[in-house]
Amino acid sequence: MNLIEKLNWRYAVKRYTNAKVPTNKLNNILEAIRLSASSAGLQPYSVLVIENEDLKKQLLPVANDQPQVAEASHLLVFAAWENITEQKVTDYIKFVAATRNMPLEALELYKNRLLGLTTRSAEENFNWAARQTYIAMGTGLVAAAEEGVDATPMEGFDPAGFDSILGLKEKGLRSVSLLTLGYRDVVNDPMANAKKVRRSSENLFIHFKN
Amino acid sequence: MNLIEKLNWRYAVKRYTNAKVPTNKLNNILEAIRLSASSAGLQPYSVLVIENEDLKKQLLPVANDQPQVAEASHLLVFAAWENITEQKVTDYIKFVAATRNMPLEALELYKNRLLGLTTRSAEENFNWAARQTYIAMGTGLVAAAEEGVDATPMEGFDPAGFDSILGLKEKGLRSVSLLTLGYRDVVNDPMANAKKVRRSSENLFIHFKN
Repeated sequence: MNLIEKLNWRYAVKRYTNAKVPTNKLNNILEAIRLSASSAGLQPYSVLVIENEDLKKQLLPVANDQPQVAEASHLLVFAAWENITEQKVTDYIKFVAATRNMPLEALELYKNRLLGLTTRSAEENFNWAARQTYIAMGTGLVAAAEEGVDATPMEGFDPAGFDSILGLKEKGLRSVSLLTLGYRDVVNDPMANAKKVRRSSENLFIHFKN
Repeated sequence: MNLIEKLNWRYAVKRYTNAKVPTNKLNNILEAIRLSASSAGLQPYSVLVIENEDLKKQLLPVANDQPQVAEASHLLVFAAWENITEQKVTDYIKFVAATRNMPLEALELYKNRLLGLTTRSAEENFNWAARQTYIAMGTGLVAAAEEGVDATPMEGFDPAGFDSILGLKEKGLRSVSLLTLGYRDVVNDPMANAKKVRRSSENLFIHFKN
């Protein structure tokens, strides 16, 4: 299958079998997420990878009892930085300098641009960081399809409940979205054979040609 | 190249050659974007596909003179709905019913859940719609890499300037992010050979195993 066929194959799975995603496939999906683009390259988030059965069951009630959370092989939680601090920027610039073997002085302009973010409100920075997690979500969805692994992107949960159970506040994080990974249960998932609904090209795109 | 190799190959290109992206490759990238996931399947955005040279030059000053905007073969603008209205929800539900050949009554619960969105403020709905565009951005970035087409995701521009030049307000849209497509100019792009900077797996992921 080429990419388009794989994207047509995937859908937001509602019911999973109890089959586990093999480690090599999981690692490829996580590696794609790790390589995702983000504004200024900051990757202002963490990704929780939950395989623990007890923890998945504990999260179920704060996920509106959506069965995917407990049934899926793995539950990924995208959690954005609650703010962009001077410390975060300084650490990042040091990391760039070390990775590229550059003197810190060569990154002064870049650093000052990023420090500009620290003058915005925490809420504004969190919303900006949250947007970046959706690039990683998009990348993860394609990577899962590439591996023949089913996935469900989810927003319908109680972020405060997740933050509390997962101890995210103490880590300076706030949960944004979920991505379950596993294998579709074609017998019990009413959406397994539903036709994909997508706006037509004519409706979605506005062209400005030469 | 497999997906991971392609994601390592890509980077946020700063300077492009004047080579054009062939129609078949552009169409595959757009088709991947069209097939992107979105919350509730609503796809609350449009994507402007700008090949017109005069228009790209006109947008350059409101894009902080970032050369990619004028140099790249194509400039994509992700523009989110400025609000979620009852009309938008009704149209969408009709579209789902027609696509899946279902009676409207069978979608009553789904419709009522979506109508709940219309009680939120316009700003809240716009921010939610804007997040969805980033899934499409992530999908588009992977699809471009898949086609061997270079790409640059960009946020550093003046959204009001873009909205004005592109007549987006009249369409109920607000510009969110840009994605340029084309071919890297390895001679003039200082980033063409820079080592990719990404947080380590140990730093980015938090595992909860059994």
